[in-house]
Amino acid sequence: MTDRIRLGMVGGGNDAFIGGVHRIASRIDDHFELVAGALSSTPEKSQASGAALGLAPDRIYDDFKQMAIREARLKNGIEVVSIVTPNHVHYAAAREFLKRGIHVICDKPLTSTLADAKKLVKAAEASEALFVLTHNYTGYPMVRQAREMIAAGQIGGVRVVQVEYPQDWLTEEQDFKQAEWRTDPARSGAGGSTGDIGTHAHNLACFVTGLELEALAADLQAFVPGRQVDDNAHVMLRFKGGARGMLWSSQVAPGNENALKIRVYGEKGGLEWAQEDPNYLWHTPLGEPKRLITRNGAGAGDAAGRLSRVPPGHPEGYLEGFANIYTEAAHAIRAKRAGITLDPEVQFPSIHDGLKGVAFVDACVRSSARNAAWVTLAD
Amino acid sequence: MTDRIRLGMVGGGNDAFIGGVHRIASRIDDHFELVAGALSSTPEKSQASGAALGLAPDRIYDDFKQMAIREARLKNGIEVVSIVTPNHVHYAAAREFLKRGIHVICDKPLTSTLADAKKLVKAAEASEALFVLTHNYTGYPMVRQAREMIAAGQIGGVRVVQVEYPQDWLTEEQDFKQAEWRTDPARSGAGGSTGDIGTHAHNLACFVTGLELEALAADLQAFVPGRQVDDNAHVMLRFKGGARGMLWSSQVAPGNENALKIRVYGEKGGLEWAQEDPNYLWHTPLGEPKRLITRNGAGAGDAAGRLSRVPPGHPEGYLEGFANIYTEAAHAIRAKRAGITLDPEVQFPSIHDGLKGVAFVDACVRSSARNAAWVTLAD
Amino acid sequence: MTDRIRLGMVGGGNDAFIGGVHRIASRIDDHFELVAGALSSTPEKSQASGAALGLAPDRIYDDFKQMAIREARLKNGIEVVSIVTPNHVHYAAAREFLKRGIHVICDKPLTSTLADAKKLVKAAEASEALFVLTHNYTGYPMVRQAREMIAAGQIGGVRVVQVEYPQDWLTEEQDFKQAEWRTDPARSGAGGSTGDIGTHAHNLACFVTGLELEALAADLQAFVPGRQVDDNAHVMLRFKGGARGMLWSSQVAPGNENALKIRVYGEKGGLEWAQEDPNYLWHTPLGEPKRLITRNGAGAGDAAGRLSRVPPGHPEGYLEGFANIYTEAAHAIRAKRAGITLDPEVQFPSIHDGLKGVAFVDACVRSSARNAAWVTLAD
Amino acid sequence: MTDRIRLGMVGGGNDAFIGGVHRIASRIDDHFELVAGALSSTPEKSQASGAALGLAPDRIYDDFKQMAIREARLKNGIEVVSIVTPNHVHYAAAREFLKRGIHVICDKPLTSTLADAKKLVKAAEASEALFVLTHNYTGYPMVRQAREMIAAGQIGGVRVVQVEYPQDWLTEEQDFKQAEWRTDPARSGAGGSTGDIGTHAHNLACFVTGLELEALAADLQAFVPGRQVDDNAHVMLRFKGGARGMLWSSQVAPGNENALKIRVYGEKGGLEWAQEDPNYLWHTPLGEPKRLITRNGAGAGDAAGRLSRVPPGHPEGYLEGFANIYTEAAHAIRAKRAGITLDPEVQFPSIHDGLKGVAFVDACVRSSARNAAWVTLAD
Repeated sequence: MTDRIRLGMVGGGNDAFIGGVHRIASRIDDHFELVAGALSSTPEKSQASGAALGLAPDRIYDDFKQMAIREARLKNGIEVVSIVTPNHVHYAAAREFLKRGIHVICDKPLTSTLADAKKLVKAAEASEALFVLTHNYTGYPMVRQAREMIAAGQIGGVRVVQVEYPQDWLTEEQDFKQAEWRTDPARSGAGGSTGDIGTHAHNLACFVTGLELEALAADLQAFVPGRQVDDNAHVMLRFKGGARGMLWSSQVAPGNENALKIRVYGEKGGLEWAQEDPNYLWHTPLGEPKRLITRNGAGAGDAAGRLSRVPPGHPEGYLEGFANIYTEAAHAIRAKRAGITLDPEVQFPSIHDGLKGVAFVDACVRSSARNAAWVTLAD
Repeated sequence: MTDRIRLGMVGGGNDAFIGGVHRIASRIDDHFELVAGALSSTPEKSQASGAALGLAPDRIYDDFKQMAIREARLKNGIEVVSIVTPNHVHYAAAREFLKRGIHVICDKPLTSTLADAKKLVKAAEASEALFVLTHNYTGYPMVRQAREMIAAGQIGGVRVVQVEYPQDWLTEEQDFKQAEWRTDPARSGAGGSTGDIGTHAHNLACFVTGLELEALAADLQAFVPGRQVDDNAHVMLRFKGGARGMLWSSQVAPGNENALKIRVYGEKGGLEWAQEDPNYLWHTPLGEPKRLITRNGAGAGDAAGRLSRVPPGHPEGYLEGFANIYTEAAHAIRAKRAGITLDPEVQFPSIHDGLKGVAFVDACVRSSARNAAWVTLAD
Repeated sequence: MTDRIRLGMVGGGNDAFIGGVHRIASRIDDHFELVAGALSSTPEKSQASGAALGLAPDRIYDDFKQMAIREARLKNGIEVVSIVTPNHVHYAAAREFLKRGIHVICDKPLTSTLADAKKLVKAAEASEALFVLTHNYTGYPMVRQAREMIAAGQIGGVRVVQVEYPQDWLTEEQDFKQAEWRTDPARSGAGGSTGDIGTHAHNLACFVTGLELEALAADLQAFVPGRQVDDNAHVMLRFKGGARGMLWSSQVAPGNENALKIRVYGEKGGLEWAQEDPNYLWHTPLGEPKRLITRNGAGAGDAAGRLSRVPPGHPEGYLEGFANIYTEAAHAIRAKRAGITLDPEVQFPSIHDGLKGVAFVDACVRSSARNAAWVTLAD
Repeated sequence: MTDRIRLGMVGGGNDAFIGGVHRIASRIDDHFELVAGALSSTPEKSQASGAALGLAPDRIYDDFKQMAIREARLKNGIEVVSIVTPNHVHYAAAREFLKRGIHVICDKPLTSTLADAKKLVKAAEASEALFVLTHNYTGYPMVRQAREMIAAGQIGGVRVVQVEYPQDWLTEEQDFKQAEWRTDPARSGAGGSTGDIGTHAHNLACFVTGLELEALAADLQAFVPGRQVDDNAHVMLRFKGGARGMLWSSQVAPGNENALKIRVYGEKGGLEWAQEDPNYLWHTPLGEPKRLITRNGAGAGDAAGRLSRVPPGHPEGYLEGFANIYTEAAHAIRAKRAGITLDPEVQFPSIHDGLKGVAFVDACVRSSARNAAWVTLAD
């Protein structure tokens, strides 16, 4: 299929987790072909990982800069690169590709520092290339359904947002790779749970409601002795326009695997969605029985339907949601290729969403340092 | 059954809700017989309500003071009175009975003001009579189970408490009686959702964990135009000893009927309980599958078993939980009658718990007035 | 309260289970006062049990016949008797009271043999007294809700009924009292799980749908070595009018405490209800999202409302459902007392329902003996 | 990636459902590349569908025979073909590829008649090629987990199997393509719901328990007027070795989207799994609390782990389960390529499983024609 979009990858070597997710996500709807990679921090590991993935030896690079330079020169060089490294590498890597006009799909959070995030926004604005941030939960059909319903006024003006993202994998000290860099402020940034998962919760709350966060008050904790970043965060939220909310992120809540959940209450109804049971959206019109809207089922609308592959009752999940971000990116890249206007129903998290996420982490850390005083979000 | 404890009631007339609940609760385990009442704010209504309940005409009183005076003199006068009026009446009514040595079972919150609460504590301390506060959710078997497990160290040291109590019945302005007094600060006190249901959530968090709240930061809202008390509250919690938590109370969250829920996470495990499905307690020992402990079922211990009437799979609910408070009160009253020491496994919310609840509301209001600054709990 | 209905009890001594349930059920709505009993199979046990319940010594009887004779002669003798013995005693006991005009509330199944059931029907028809069978699950509000919706055509013509009642308490051989008589055909009748719980499932299916069972094909098993009655039953159902169904009863299904569940599917919708979560009824109008109707909540109708005591979100359960049967009985007894026509909305399982239940067990046993051939229901 | 297995497809044109599922499933783990197709029943539609999929024009065929002949001669012709047509085409299509040594991945049920199924077994036995049947639900990790636990004796000897597969999409008459051929006995075979989904339920019951079905008694209905095949089926099951069960398949049960569910009860425990929430397996060890085992989570074993891509809490679903069958097929094909013995942990439904499925449908139809008499399964 010669029409596939040529994809490179930075990071995602053999012992990574999210790299494999990106690769599956890129294949599900058959829009991409992985053809190049700088997959690891050492040339040896990068070669081994690339070979395992079946990359041509001359498309396996020692580092992202080498890859950006050469691929930009190739006739059939990569059109887009996925950056799936630890956070502190995002900025430097993305910059190299953006300045050469290669589209970037980048893992969240955008960067490990607010300064880097701001610089990256400038780099992206100066580039012709697209920038797609994988806040993958915005790709779930029932999240789109919720957003569509709120935008259409189906629950009335939003008053209260309850969003939480508890996990339990860091309840005790861990020393394997995924845990190690995520608890190292030099690599993950100043936020621990706030950066790794709180940014997802923040992004989801804004995406679903269409609201923007104005101020927050955060009480961060590092419960595990010796931990240098927060592993639990309690945050009160004030949105522009008057809605209020609470956000809880935790990596020390036993019994929670990946329990991202959002509940939104408006003047005329409520909506509830949980990532671990993603095919369901609960909707209560005020004064009526609660309704269970299912992915592609009765009551689900166009926004969910266009991201859904199989009939209701045939569950889709994390990988399909992630694939939807890739497929939205593919639509955008193909529109760029063709020089046509992008269909407005295509949506993906942007570099500006990424900046807001890093600003959210920054605000949490600042507020907590001031004993949970209210702080506004820098931008 | 001549052995029944003679019970009077203040409030709980024909159009009340909680009075009927108290009466059913008093009958379930057959420890009480309602024999007297000052059931309403007017003599006419009180008479009508008393007649409907089958009270002897000479035991139906115009007001609580008249009742306290006369019943105290009767040979077979009431031994205990249930006070089920709006909050602002609790103090004056309770005082009359306490000073005559008549035991008091009083609805929550203890009083409508902190000053009243402190005075009532003194009145109770000066009296020989018992004082039982109906924080009824502490009477649910699986709540006792949770408390027992935490006290036994089964989830390790507590780190995080998430407690919430959302409802939806005040999403729009309401003018029926139950809504009216609860949204009138003169009768309910300065707290709206915080007083009516936040106190339950606060009490439950402390009861289950055995922890005491040290400080809180509260952001209160009154979303419904013209409402004089909070109808939604976001509260961050700091417990003595280092545990942290969040508390959400709301009366404007469509789709939530009476959704009190508590989740407690410790160093070695987690527990989750929801009032609307009260026969279940979820327990996750860290690193093991989640377990569903059922009331009277496998894995349930003595603390739950002694409050359970029927086998597992035969659901008990709100009325049975409420009845457990009455039955605990009966055990205490019988022990007093007999002049024997009360079995330490008998537990009921005390006037001191009541004071803490009013202090919680007071702290929420103070904190919110100071833009959610941290305040310690007065006592 | 002189207005209470005077109640006696046969069976229900100290080590019984269901007797205590009946007593609580009789108290919840305050219509009855237990004043007499023949509570056990020996005079000594009966005396001890009666004393523990606070009965007057002269109202504690050695056996049910003595009690029937004397109470019928007393000026304020019992008006109604609850029969809560093992099945094989029901017929002889009920007959004694019916022939003296004392109303009978009798536990299910009606009798241990079909012959006894037919004789008891004649005895009841010859008596002025009422006969109420405690198929208690028909007293749950959401069961009434389901019945009302089907009767109103809300799911169209019924096609398929799936009903099941699995338990696990007899997975291994047991020798305590409750297990012993239930697995002894001389006391329980020829059916094991079919008699003890299958009759509930059969009754519920007919009550909810308004249909009558025409024929069945049953495959019964006794999995536990040495067991003399079925402990698991698979039954295919054909209802008059063309609806079909399946019924599963089991006492050997680990993980099922008391998991009675019914699902009904019609031409225009479906309904699902589970006894262990009794406050919820799921309704799917064909082509629309599933709806969760809650007890006393939005969408619940009059039939459920009149049996509901507390607001939605305040769970009622097994004891309240059982109490509803007692309260319906009280309405009927009071109407008899007053000589007025009973309000048609008052409903309770009758002796004819009891006969159908025994016929169901008989048919299951006959069919299974013929290798699950179809048999019609004797009447 | 030159190592991909070259895949062709028969059926699966533009307006098909299951063809697209097969294609996604083939891509998820990157083992296959679709290179040829005879995608529709007319050359024009086949060309259009192939072009839309990006196939080379000379690899798009008018019919499966032409494709089999030419691809078998090509140097880099297809190594495996996926047959995703209506049932009645399976036999003729599969035969053409098998006799040319091309592996076959075939949708279920195996064929539309028992005679065809037997002939196809012979054709497969005479071929060197592999035959893989997409009973896709055997590819779900938690189904493998259940099978592994039962095989290891974790619930003791199996006594009772409850399996059901209700849907609602044929509650009313439908005339779109997917409905049309499934309700036409000439194309689907004599079974309606039994063939389309009952075969999945039967296969799942046997796969999970490791038991073989010995006899069944079936009561089939066609509720929708004019329907020529069953749309609802009640089946009682007897397994070799003494276990018993019930199977319900339905396409007329409103509120059920794709609600395949299995429950297995043994002497020492129970297991429950539902396809619509596939990441969960409930396990009750007799006398202990119910446990929730999650995909890749605590308590999950090797059999589930090897088919799982992402951490617990990140739901996988229908497409991933389907992909697991493709990946198992890929392992088998690669082992064939390499001439090595296949790792015994690799498992996929075989042609013999397919024959059993068609025999199941045949037995259901025969039994129902004899008024639900017991029939043994032909083979």
